[in-house]
Amino acid sequence: MSVATEARAGEPVSLGVSKGRVEALSDGVFAIVVTLLVLEIKVPHVGAHDSVRALAGALLALAPKFVSWVISFATVCVIWLNHHRLFSRIGRLDNALFWLNANLLLWTSFIPFPTALMGDYPGNRLAVSFYGTVMALMALAFVLMRWRLHCHDRLLQDGADRELFRQGTRRSIWMGPVAYGIGASLAWVFPPAAFACYAAIAIYFVLPRDARTKP
Amino acid sequence: MSVATEARAGEPVSLGVSKGRVEALSDGVFAIVVTLLVLEIKVPHVGAHDSVRALAGALLALAPKFVSWVISFATVCVIWLNHHRLFSRIGRLDNALFWLNANLLLWTSFIPFPTALMGDYPGNRLAVSFYGTVMALMALAFVLMRWRLHCHDRLLQDGADRELFRQGTRRSIWMGPVAYGIGASLAWVFPPAAFACYAAIAIYFVLPRDARTKP
Amino acid sequence: MSVATEARAGEPVSLGVSKGRVEALSDGVFAIVVTLLVLEIKVPHVGAHDSVRALAGALLALAPKFVSWVISFATVCVIWLNHHRLFSRIGRLDNALFWLNANLLLWTSFIPFPTALMGDYPGNRLAVSFYGTVMALMALAFVLMRWRLHCHDRLLQDGADRELFRQGTRRSIWMGPVAYGIGASLAWVFPPAAFACYAAIAIYFVLPRDARTKP
Amino acid sequence: MSVATEARAGEPVSLGVSKGRVEALSDGVFAIVVTLLVLEIKVPHVGAHDSVRALAGALLALAPKFVSWVISFATVCVIWLNHHRLFSRIGRLDNALFWLNANLLLWTSFIPFPTALMGDYPGNRLAVSFYGTVMALMALAFVLMRWRLHCHDRLLQDGADRELFRQGTRRSIWMGPVAYGIGASLAWVFPPAAFACYAAIAIYFVLPRDARTKP
Repeated sequence: MSVATEARAGEPVSLGVSKGRVEALSDGVFAIVVTLLVLEIKVPHVGAHDSVRALAGALLALAPKFVSWVISFATVCVIWLNHHRLFSRIGRLDNALFWLNANLLLWTSFIPFPTALMGDYPGNRLAVSFYGTVMALMALAFVLMRWRLHCHDRLLQDGADRELFRQGTRRSIWMGPVAYGIGASLAWVFPPAAFACYAAIAIYFVLPRDARTKP
Repeated sequence: MSVATEARAGEPVSLGVSKGRVEALSDGVFAIVVTLLVLEIKVPHVGAHDSVRALAGALLALAPKFVSWVISFATVCVIWLNHHRLFSRIGRLDNALFWLNANLLLWTSFIPFPTALMGDYPGNRLAVSFYGTVMALMALAFVLMRWRLHCHDRLLQDGADRELFRQGTRRSIWMGPVAYGIGASLAWVFPPAAFACYAAIAIYFVLPRDARTKP
Repeated sequence: MSVATEARAGEPVSLGVSKGRVEALSDGVFAIVVTLLVLEIKVPHVGAHDSVRALAGALLALAPKFVSWVISFATVCVIWLNHHRLFSRIGRLDNALFWLNANLLLWTSFIPFPTALMGDYPGNRLAVSFYGTVMALMALAFVLMRWRLHCHDRLLQDGADRELFRQGTRRSIWMGPVAYGIGASLAWVFPPAAFACYAAIAIYFVLPRDARTKP
Repeated sequence: MSVATEARAGEPVSLGVSKGRVEALSDGVFAIVVTLLVLEIKVPHVGAHDSVRALAGALLALAPKFVSWVISFATVCVIWLNHHRLFSRIGRLDNALFWLNANLLLWTSFIPFPTALMGDYPGNRLAVSFYGTVMALMALAFVLMRWRLHCHDRLLQDGADRELFRQGTRRSIWMGPVAYGIGASLAWVFPPAAFACYAAIAIYFVLPRDARTKP
């Protein structure tokens, strides 16, 4: 795979690592992140060990953490799904694309931190906005990968439909950095609205594609 | 795999991701959960560092955590096994089935929390019942996947025996949400009985299939 | 793979899951355990943030934890290696073999706990003996798998040399439960001798096979 | 793969495990380490839950941890990339090579500890130097693997260019143990210079290969 090493300025430089391995590394990171998320929810400490009432109260107080966890869980599943769809269009990887993918993994592996932060401080505007900002940067990483493929379409799969790909790129800007940016802004006005926005973005991607494309 | 994109109302919508990749993601989550479970058992703090007696007492006090851990470990192995048997019957995945599988992964990845909770509060009725409730929801996720396959049997493997599959679905309701629901109810009467019930469900699945089907 | 479902008493019962998947699950668990081990070494808290002397003292105090970690790291690598060699001899898995393998994974995934315990209490006879006991049970899990294969040699790879396999089984008893049992006993007399014993067992397996078989 | 078991003194001894499995184990470890790194960044505790100012201050105080995390993240990606390039040149593994690879995994899996240490004590010369020392030992592990392949070039891929491999080995000494050694030394003079050095080494490897080889 990708044996040629032509290197004119701006031309894709061969990476020497197959697409399948990068996909496996990414899959590993997604599987680990999705499973680690729950570790940020700690078992509450309750004085009266056998008191149902005390434990019920402590568990209810964790509600914002459970909500953050479910939103992030669904979001990472969406990342996984979109990552696979994108990679199925890629024919070969160059060095830039590898590192743009690493950038996506960086933000994805960071998700447990903003999730825990938002779960711990659900009423703090900065905490809720921080979550949306990280997600916007993660979504931007997708846009940058698509941009690289748009500029060097020799990296695309041979049979790939260029026009369809361009439409997808445009959509990935709106239902990505822009949507999360709106959520992050809403957090400064009314934090619960930002929660709803983050959940809505995940739900949008959970819906089947045909339902989405038909208005 | 699954190239067609027919989208009549209620019909399976093509996912664009192969079954093998979803299986690999699920396997990753199962392997991580099964290994993370032990992280919830923390090394006890003992004042007299070299005192065998003090450390023995501290380790014995962890007994409920060890019991919870072993039950959850066996349960996740059972989930892995049943997941593989179910996937071996699936021919292709649609969007709904992907998200029903994600729902199973959500509950499975949550298991470390109720395991630690039950291990920390083995005498608290709510903690022990909470464990059974989470497991019932996990088992319900299996039933929902089977239900989807039952309603859209074009998603099943070509040679799959429909009648056998229907029997398996019926059994998955009884030895799933119903059995765990009974355990969660028992917890309100006598917590140790619930522990026994959760362990018994795991043991049922550990037994060879022929021993189970013959009454 | 393994389609037949004959079920005479004591005969291997077909599992319905391929050997490759069980190997992948086991590999996942080994990779995760080997990487999680370091999480048990916590960054020390030092009052004077920029004091080299204070931090050096705190890091030196962690020495037993570093030693435990290296021994366990090497041991898990050995488990991985021996697991692969054993699986390369297996032709197909039955239900009993799957659960005997799950038993091995249980003890292997438990290793971070005794490692942290021995690292925290290196002078406590119980802590050091506990480590050896867990390792003995892990090694016993290997012996039990080999025993199952010995009794039902239809599960072995077709071309496998039965006599060579029997020799390996005998050796796995000595350089397994027996050797770790000796280490666990030594801990009650002189803990550092047990550390040396655990390290020696790992080193024995690190040496090339020919060097080992030639006395 | 590698069936022969010739064992003259110093000759490669057959391992009995395929190269692909060792690669999969290594990939698993890299994926887990890269994802675990973020777990060392704990959500800060702030008294006034809804105070934006207090939380902003607490997050800014974490800046050194974020910087350490990004440097380590990029470094592990570089390790992954270099590991793949090296393995693509290997034809078969012997026992020594397996354990030299395990040595690389040991230092790589250790990275979360020095990363957290440097993030917690960014102004402590020992902490910052410790990070570089661990990285130098990790890089040395690569050199040792290359050395083994250099001495026993029967282990190399059949078509591999010996001269090119020798050049790579020489470069791996300079842009490995030597460069990190310089960083670790700089830490004793001026810690921020060491941070810059560690980042520069990662950036060197992020650049496309052709840009690097042309001076």
